[in-house]
Amino acid sequence: MRLSARSLLALFLIGSLCGLVGDHAAVASGTTRYLDTGGFPMIWGSPLFFPPMVGLGTAALGELRLRLGPARPGGDWIEGMAGVASVLGMYLLTAFLTDESTSAATAFLACLAVLVLARFGGGRPAIVCGVVAALVGPVAEILEERAGIYEYTANVDGLLGVGPWLVPLYFAFGIVCARLGELFWQREQ
Amino acid sequence: MRLSARSLLALFLIGSLCGLVGDHAAVASGTTRYLDTGGFPMIWGSPLFFPPMVGLGTAALGELRLRLGPARPGGDWIEGMAGVASVLGMYLLTAFLTDESTSAATAFLACLAVLVLARFGGGRPAIVCGVVAALVGPVAEILEERAGIYEYTANVDGLLGVGPWLVPLYFAFGIVCARLGELFWQREQ
Amino acid sequence: MRLSARSLLALFLIGSLCGLVGDHAAVASGTTRYLDTGGFPMIWGSPLFFPPMVGLGTAALGELRLRLGPARPGGDWIEGMAGVASVLGMYLLTAFLTDESTSAATAFLACLAVLVLARFGGGRPAIVCGVVAALVGPVAEILEERAGIYEYTANVDGLLGVGPWLVPLYFAFGIVCARLGELFWQREQ
Repeated sequence: MRLSARSLLALFLIGSLCGLVGDHAAVASGTTRYLDTGGFPMIWGSPLFFPPMVGLGTAALGELRLRLGPARPGGDWIEGMAGVASVLGMYLLTAFLTDESTSAATAFLACLAVLVLARFGGGRPAIVCGVVAALVGPVAEILEERAGIYEYTANVDGLLGVGPWLVPLYFAFGIVCARLGELFWQREQ
Repeated sequence: MRLSARSLLALFLIGSLCGLVGDHAAVASGTTRYLDTGGFPMIWGSPLFFPPMVGLGTAALGELRLRLGPARPGGDWIEGMAGVASVLGMYLLTAFLTDESTSAATAFLACLAVLVLARFGGGRPAIVCGVVAALVGPVAEILEERAGIYEYTANVDGLLGVGPWLVPLYFAFGIVCARLGELFWQREQ
Repeated sequence: MRLSARSLLALFLIGSLCGLVGDHAAVASGTTRYLDTGGFPMIWGSPLFFPPMVGLGTAALGELRLRLGPARPGGDWIEGMAGVASVLGMYLLTAFLTDESTSAATAFLACLAVLVLARFGGGRPAIVCGVVAALVGPVAEILEERAGIYEYTANVDGLLGVGPWLVPLYFAFGIVCARLGELFWQREQ
């Protein structure tokens, strides 16, 4: 691995915490409803396995970034916090926009994803991480939805049962995970 | 013309696409309702003449910017995308905020317009483009509303029949069109 | 005082104007309701004493910033306007988000406060101003609520009777007041 166990753990914990907060908002707003969570205990509205899945994705994308090329110099922990805040803010917005036109909400999330790309993106490696996240994330959610674990509410199930704005949301997630990977790698040097 | 036909066409297409997406959201949210569109075919909720009008405005403001003074150096296509995303995002927000207090929504759009000015503005020429757009845009919409082409819903018709937040929205539009004019001009050199 | 009377007056007026606009939105959205305002005349939905309280806080935090260390060089009036727009925009958002899950709205405001910190913050002195504001502001509001001056609507009274998102909102307010203090101090030199 390019990142130390300590950095990977930090990325895992950051992602898990954001997954917990964002999923709470999704459940509270009725955007998603858990149906059959396999008997897992629930924590703040989420089954215990959901937040760690976001954490694993965060660490995996950070590690992927460093395998795609050398980290850019510069940046500090406040920039990392700003990246996390940007993506978590987008996640929370999907909950607030549940009752709006889904095409408008998806276009709005796409606009925000462009702003995240412009602020935190770093050329081709970051874009690869964004595209990988924008493909794998929604596919994983579609499979979980098909497995009957949860459902999206009727207004936002237009992408094979899940919210179409998952695509720009996961893209921005990938961009920021790539930046976090760079920042944690710098700290280790 | 200061801009090449190719750049003007690109600006026209960018503006038309954003007009199409933003107007779809306005119609979907009930912010505006088309009444008598003169028999024009509708495309995704808009009469066929509306998106090109936004495109013409985009190209005209980009050209105006270059007549007001030399383009600033620097900037890249990601900055241009971020400018477009900022204004389209504001346009979509006006749809989401239809049911809120219109004075509060207008103040919020004004705050965002200030952020667009701070990020993409370039001194007096950009501000002139913003002010021209903030005057001409709402006046054109008021005339179209009086002509019976469309109406704004009751909560947001406080500016002679149209939404008062059109003023900060068009101001930000003018600022970003000016920046796009600069960026396209640079590409041609 | 480190700031001239003229700068303190300007900060007072900026804060008062934003307090007036933000409180109007809070009242219009039903986020807060004034109960017993002691016979003070009302202005645009607020009792006459509320906007000046925000103005006093703005001037006090700007002055506090300069007592905590030397002002950073750089910055211009557009940056100051952007800071004001960011915090006023957050204030208005609390009105728009009244009917959403309060924990989700608070997390969203916290995300925006991080972005304000990353953009306008200036090390320890700014953070001290943010923390002071995040403590004193909500405590003052809790005392006013207990005194029966106003009440928060049922959905957003989770922090001893007031909105929990007051904490990130006042934190961002303190960060921006600190930056305004720096910018006004520079103008005086």
